[in-house]
Amino acid sequence: MTKPSIPKGTRDFMPADVAKRNYIFDQIKKVFTTFGYVPIETPTMELLATLTGKYGEEGDKLLFKVLNNGDFLKDANKEALESLQSQKLVSSISKRGLRYDLTVPFARFVVMHQNEISFPFKRYQIQPVWRADSPQRGRFQEFYQCDVDVVGSDSLMYEAELMQIYHDVFRSLGLNVNILVNNRKILFGVAEAAGIADHFMEMTIAIDKMDKIGRDGVIAEMLSKGISETSAHHVLDLMSKKTLDELKEAFANSETGQKGITEVENVFALTGESVPNLVFSINLARGLNYYTGCIFEAVLDATVYPELKMGSLGGGGRYDDLTGTFGMKDMSGVGVSFGAERIFIVMEELGLFPENTAKDIDVLFIALDDESHLTGFKWLYQLRQAGVACDMYPKATKMNKQMKYANDRKVPYVAIIGESERISGSVSLKNMETGVQQVIPFTGLLNTPVSDWV
Amino acid sequence: MTKPSIPKGTRDFMPADVAKRNYIFDQIKKVFTTFGYVPIETPTMELLATLTGKYGEEGDKLLFKVLNNGDFLKDANKEALESLQSQKLVSSISKRGLRYDLTVPFARFVVMHQNEISFPFKRYQIQPVWRADSPQRGRFQEFYQCDVDVVGSDSLMYEAELMQIYHDVFRSLGLNVNILVNNRKILFGVAEAAGIADHFMEMTIAIDKMDKIGRDGVIAEMLSKGISETSAHHVLDLMSKKTLDELKEAFANSETGQKGITEVENVFALTGESVPNLVFSINLARGLNYYTGCIFEAVLDATVYPELKMGSLGGGGRYDDLTGTFGMKDMSGVGVSFGAERIFIVMEELGLFPENTAKDIDVLFIALDDESHLTGFKWLYQLRQAGVACDMYPKATKMNKQMKYANDRKVPYVAIIGESERISGSVSLKNMETGVQQVIPFTGLLNTPVSDWV
Repeated sequence: MTKPSIPKGTRDFMPADVAKRNYIFDQIKKVFTTFGYVPIETPTMELLATLTGKYGEEGDKLLFKVLNNGDFLKDANKEALESLQSQKLVSSISKRGLRYDLTVPFARFVVMHQNEISFPFKRYQIQPVWRADSPQRGRFQEFYQCDVDVVGSDSLMYEAELMQIYHDVFRSLGLNVNILVNNRKILFGVAEAAGIADHFMEMTIAIDKMDKIGRDGVIAEMLSKGISETSAHHVLDLMSKKTLDELKEAFANSETGQKGITEVENVFALTGESVPNLVFSINLARGLNYYTGCIFEAVLDATVYPELKMGSLGGGGRYDDLTGTFGMKDMSGVGVSFGAERIFIVMEELGLFPENTAKDIDVLFIALDDESHLTGFKWLYQLRQAGVACDMYPKATKMNKQMKYANDRKVPYVAIIGESERISGSVSLKNMETGVQQVIPFTGLLNTPVSDWV
Repeated sequence: MTKPSIPKGTRDFMPADVAKRNYIFDQIKKVFTTFGYVPIETPTMELLATLTGKYGEEGDKLLFKVLNNGDFLKDANKEALESLQSQKLVSSISKRGLRYDLTVPFARFVVMHQNEISFPFKRYQIQPVWRADSPQRGRFQEFYQCDVDVVGSDSLMYEAELMQIYHDVFRSLGLNVNILVNNRKILFGVAEAAGIADHFMEMTIAIDKMDKIGRDGVIAEMLSKGISETSAHHVLDLMSKKTLDELKEAFANSETGQKGITEVENVFALTGESVPNLVFSINLARGLNYYTGCIFEAVLDATVYPELKMGSLGGGGRYDDLTGTFGMKDMSGVGVSFGAERIFIVMEELGLFPENTAKDIDVLFIALDDESHLTGFKWLYQLRQAGVACDMYPKATKMNKQMKYANDRKVPYVAIIGESERISGSVSLKNMETGVQQVIPFTGLLNTPVSDWV
């Protein structure tokens, strides 16, 4: 018998981890709800026709494909079979894949249910996704995503409220973040000003790597993509401008660039004091190419956490054509996501989970004889009916064995019942932290909130 | 462009459905928690080595298998490929499958984490599972299961508390159920008394179909399995006994049968008045063959709902060897599950979801001009900070368009802001149900709980 295991890159979640993750999600959901976003859920499996081609060539390779059921070889591509061409064979033996992100399923959902929902449609979605990436420390093949989007309006009101959501969520979690904002139109303005509008995407992808490869690396990448040295340096020169006002002059001849500036200014005007940590950052590029307007990223405030190295805790932006690939045009949307895995790690490291997040029971009953066990079991139910989380060791076995169980479960109180307690209708309540032990009537315990127990 | 769709047997969940399902799960979790059960989660994909052979030959066929990534044909079974034998090929091109239930992953979890958990280990698990069944009305390929189990003790205390959990959960959901209890040892006693101990499993499977095929059908099935006519009639004769006392006599020569009776009696003694709807039912068999002691089923009380035809809303029992297949012996456990899909349908049909379960926002702001829109957006944030779920139409467009949006979102109140309201710092609050409309200062709105709005 081999030792059982689980697929690489996947995880079992122990009770404390489930509780902590749910704490994060509950805080997030509470904010989403006050902002008028409602939850949807989509199936784990989507048709490969829906998923394929949406995440680039690399993404297609990382899709988990589900084998058709039954005699799947019956309809298999014979030529691919004979020549052992795996990738060519796939579509004939697999028609379903696992959800790779929440954006494509959301687009598919909007198109399929367009007659059942009212636009602007504000939804959030918190579900796991799967990617066949090589697992690394902190990178898994199964992980939760948490997205909040609104589609069906191009109003900047939504950019502004999403910034308020970022601010409110991270504040509620106790995390100090800066929220970086830029605009794809500003980046296009930079490209136009540098005379490389036709290399906009290559420029954006290069800029996106600034943190990793530095100024020289970005220039080298631009050169390798056919951008001239003059233009590359012009781009970097523009990127050194820190304020919107400095850029305005440079965008004298770029209508798009000016529009981008106006959009970002409007977001600042709309958020005002409600999002004091919103920061314009021209270096923010966000590699994915479907964004068309404002782009965002939430990063830890390095002045507060100089020691903590962690990438962004979330990001997002405006996309003008979410659903076009499914045949529904002109559906503008904007959304952000929360990097639940990273938020978890950071909160764990900073000790930000409230002490009782992973609480098990409040009290464990310990019976010293069989009759006391029966009495204890009855009391247990009364206490549970009162909403107190409690439990009992299953047998009136040796005291130290029962106390070990209480310790293993990190129980704050034990209620010991022996003959004398039973006869007097009492328990010996022991505070496991202070060691204080006192005999109190069970009815007293029942009528006292746990927070008032000594 | 073809219309996008989702795999057969899967579903998108609209916001109201997510909210209702979460209402059920929240009620269930609240009870689980007071009884000292803690949540775990296991990966969506398990190794096929873990899953295969655990659900019978039929079950193996219903497993969704995930294709290995990359050049999966490289290691494919050449013989199976050439002879086009799909089932023979599977294990060489797929090493992962989707979770089929929560029991096998739990057993695997217990074995893998045996040194991190304390026994008795009480866990609950609420996650989707996947089965390649032919989809039918009410039967899906992806659906939630909700299991609660304790392993590492054979104490009947746990049988008793699981019955209390059934009782408390269904009461909290507003459903009147009967909880049927039987014991596999009693069924073995029946087999012994009828002289067919060697046909115990065949007899049990036949009895399990009583509701579907009737007495004659059960007898016919037993005959077809090599049970004599005399024995078959003897079984049915014993099955007609309604009380434990009647059975005791018949079990004079069956030690196992007597033990089963004692166990059920003890469960009744332990639960007492706390589970008034616990009913002994000798007809209860539960087809799956891993149960070894008490077995349970929760069914709607037909006297309360004579019109509602619905199978069991949950079931479970004692199994003496959960983890043996993974090399860990003598791990007795007992658990029950809740049929979340059926509970949802029944509650929907009976109108048992609280009115505000699927509530969206409390109030929608409607601005009549651009300046009022800016004012409204500021007020919106203040109201959200006060915990009120609210929203605003993205533009100061025509009143009727904004009112239509409010109606579509079933908003209970709209707060209209035109020039006069803005200047006086007020809104015209309209109750969408009563039609009552009144001008009130925004600060008044902010300081009044929504439940007190007129």
